[in-house]
Amino acid sequence: MVTLDIQHRCGKARAGRLITPHGAVDTPVFMPVGTAGALKGVTADQARAAGVTMLLANAYHLMLRPGARVVADLGGLHKMMGWDGPILTDSGGYQVFSLAHLRTITDDAVTFQSHVDGATLALSPERVIDIQRALGADVIMQLDECPPGDAPKEQIVAAVARSAAWAGRCRQKWSASGNRRQALFGIQQGGTHTDLRAESAERLVALDLPGYAIGGLSVGEGHEAMLGVLDGVAEQFPADRPRYLMGVGEPRDILAAVAAGVDMFDCVLPTRNGRNAQAFTWAGPMRLRNARWADDTAPLSDQCDCYCCKNFSRGALRHLFMAREMLGPTLVSIHNLRFFAELMAAIRQAIVAGMLDESTRTWMAGLYPAGDDE
Amino acid sequence: MVTLDIQHRCGKARAGRLITPHGAVDTPVFMPVGTAGALKGVTADQARAAGVTMLLANAYHLMLRPGARVVADLGGLHKMMGWDGPILTDSGGYQVFSLAHLRTITDDAVTFQSHVDGATLALSPERVIDIQRALGADVIMQLDECPPGDAPKEQIVAAVARSAAWAGRCRQKWSASGNRRQALFGIQQGGTHTDLRAESAERLVALDLPGYAIGGLSVGEGHEAMLGVLDGVAEQFPADRPRYLMGVGEPRDILAAVAAGVDMFDCVLPTRNGRNAQAFTWAGPMRLRNARWADDTAPLSDQCDCYCCKNFSRGALRHLFMAREMLGPTLVSIHNLRFFAELMAAIRQAIVAGMLDESTRTWMAGLYPAGDDE
Repeated sequence: MVTLDIQHRCGKARAGRLITPHGAVDTPVFMPVGTAGALKGVTADQARAAGVTMLLANAYHLMLRPGARVVADLGGLHKMMGWDGPILTDSGGYQVFSLAHLRTITDDAVTFQSHVDGATLALSPERVIDIQRALGADVIMQLDECPPGDAPKEQIVAAVARSAAWAGRCRQKWSASGNRRQALFGIQQGGTHTDLRAESAERLVALDLPGYAIGGLSVGEGHEAMLGVLDGVAEQFPADRPRYLMGVGEPRDILAAVAAGVDMFDCVLPTRNGRNAQAFTWAGPMRLRNARWADDTAPLSDQCDCYCCKNFSRGALRHLFMAREMLGPTLVSIHNLRFFAELMAAIRQAIVAGMLDESTRTWMAGLYPAGDDE
Repeated sequence: MVTLDIQHRCGKARAGRLITPHGAVDTPVFMPVGTAGALKGVTADQARAAGVTMLLANAYHLMLRPGARVVADLGGLHKMMGWDGPILTDSGGYQVFSLAHLRTITDDAVTFQSHVDGATLALSPERVIDIQRALGADVIMQLDECPPGDAPKEQIVAAVARSAAWAGRCRQKWSASGNRRQALFGIQQGGTHTDLRAESAERLVALDLPGYAIGGLSVGEGHEAMLGVLDGVAEQFPADRPRYLMGVGEPRDILAAVAAGVDMFDCVLPTRNGRNAQAFTWAGPMRLRNARWADDTAPLSDQCDCYCCKNFSRGALRHLFMAREMLGPTLVSIHNLRFFAELMAAIRQAIVAGMLDESTRTWMAGLYPAGDDE
């Protein structure tokens, strides 16, 4: 069972606790991404110390390698990852549509070639439930169809219908098992079309699911278009269920989504940018390969209490990237994970204080300094 | 000042404490290698938790990038590396002879092209002292000439003479500064020639240096030839000075060298093998890409208390390597560092107990299982 205990509200924004079989986490929560069952370059211990409370892993990648049966044999995903906190697995729909080759989609299932070894595989709504049961995450996702951001409306109409039908079949399979320990979330589609978003939400809510995700965003539609969709979220989904915006993201988008009533987020940004020598700070991003940092003895951020900031200077970090040492990506990923944990903690405090709008304006001025690309 | 406080003896073997400006470490000590100012894939915290007490870094690499002046500007090597324990820097001689291009050697200095950017650089005995003073390690090394393992005897004779002359100039430069906080070690050369080794040692000992290194081994001469050289060490060097076998290494070679009276070691093996999916265990090496580990729920070693063994199964580690996750190299490097720390601790205990020979025989049977290449 996974439930959301909402403790504070500020406008449409909510702060609370997501209760899961692997403990409770404060919401709004940001989940870093351990695609193949590992945060890239960061141990579970380092993530925990950086303030990470909940992780996401990708059923698609794990199904291909090492395989859901192997994960189960190794004691399940928590055991395999050395992580005892909550985990959410994405069903694989998004990866099938973005990574796999030779995709054939019917109402029954999607057939595709593995991007790892070329094997032909099929994912049906029932199969993604089986796979995610074997993996053992706390929150599991329905199979959905995620059209590209620039898809014509007819295609999005079809994707909404098919995703809704698949949500029903996922619920059926999930229900039939009698195992409610894992929570099944539905996924809203509909592109940037308000009418389709409303229809998609209505069909999901009729299934009375433990939580609802907003899918098909952060696929190139832009910040304004995303805001248009998020605007409907608070009315479309029941107040007592967690709302999860998939694949987001940028601090700017997180702030807007929280204000619209979203509780959960995931994104590769902290670790991907960390690997690419880009650090998040409250004063805007820093690109550490820039020669201006070569002699700089200050930490990435004076206010940050992460392992990286307590022990390494900007100059030392720049050197690690220039020398292609693995430690550079690890240290800046740790810092970025800490930054996102701090961002979410600050958001929660602002909700409790009833000052989310004011705080957001202040933070935005620092996070996105006008005209400063560094 | 760096001094060795010998507390126990067992045959020629010694156990004690090396006292340095950054704390005391138990000897015999194994130093993992942070070539460019970082252990590859392992943070200073993780290394400390794995039992690492002293590190080695390469003046050659740091001189090329980020440059000795930048390291000094960043507060010195300890600060740059986030490591408050003792550090030893190699002078760069070995790297100039193994890595650099277009090398020209005269009695005055060695001129070479940087393997990083092709710049022409020179290293003299005086310059390596200046560079290592800027880096700030606790133990610094003389510039030496390290001929290849298969060099003709005339070349080794010349290298012994030149290295001895350079040791004198390094000592002069080091002495002249009045700063005895850093300890200068001389480096014995002489290949596998007993007469040349004796001559080299004699010339170094005449300089009354704080410590003595055995160089020019582990360059392809084989275990038996190495033993022949090590056999003379206890007589050639004063009993109250630390003896350091450079670039070693294999547990087998460490055990033999300790028995011959060596106190200090360095090698890339724990981290290099860790990156290549090879784990050290008391029951012999494990190659983690082997399919036999895919479903194995046991840790690398039941007896090991490292972060990797306490949290990850062999199957999980194999998956990380197959999926090319950075975490695989990091975790197995941590385990290997712990293994070497445990090996050295076991060696010290055996010396204290007066049972080094018996213990070594028992360990060797496990470490190098006959006929088992896994």
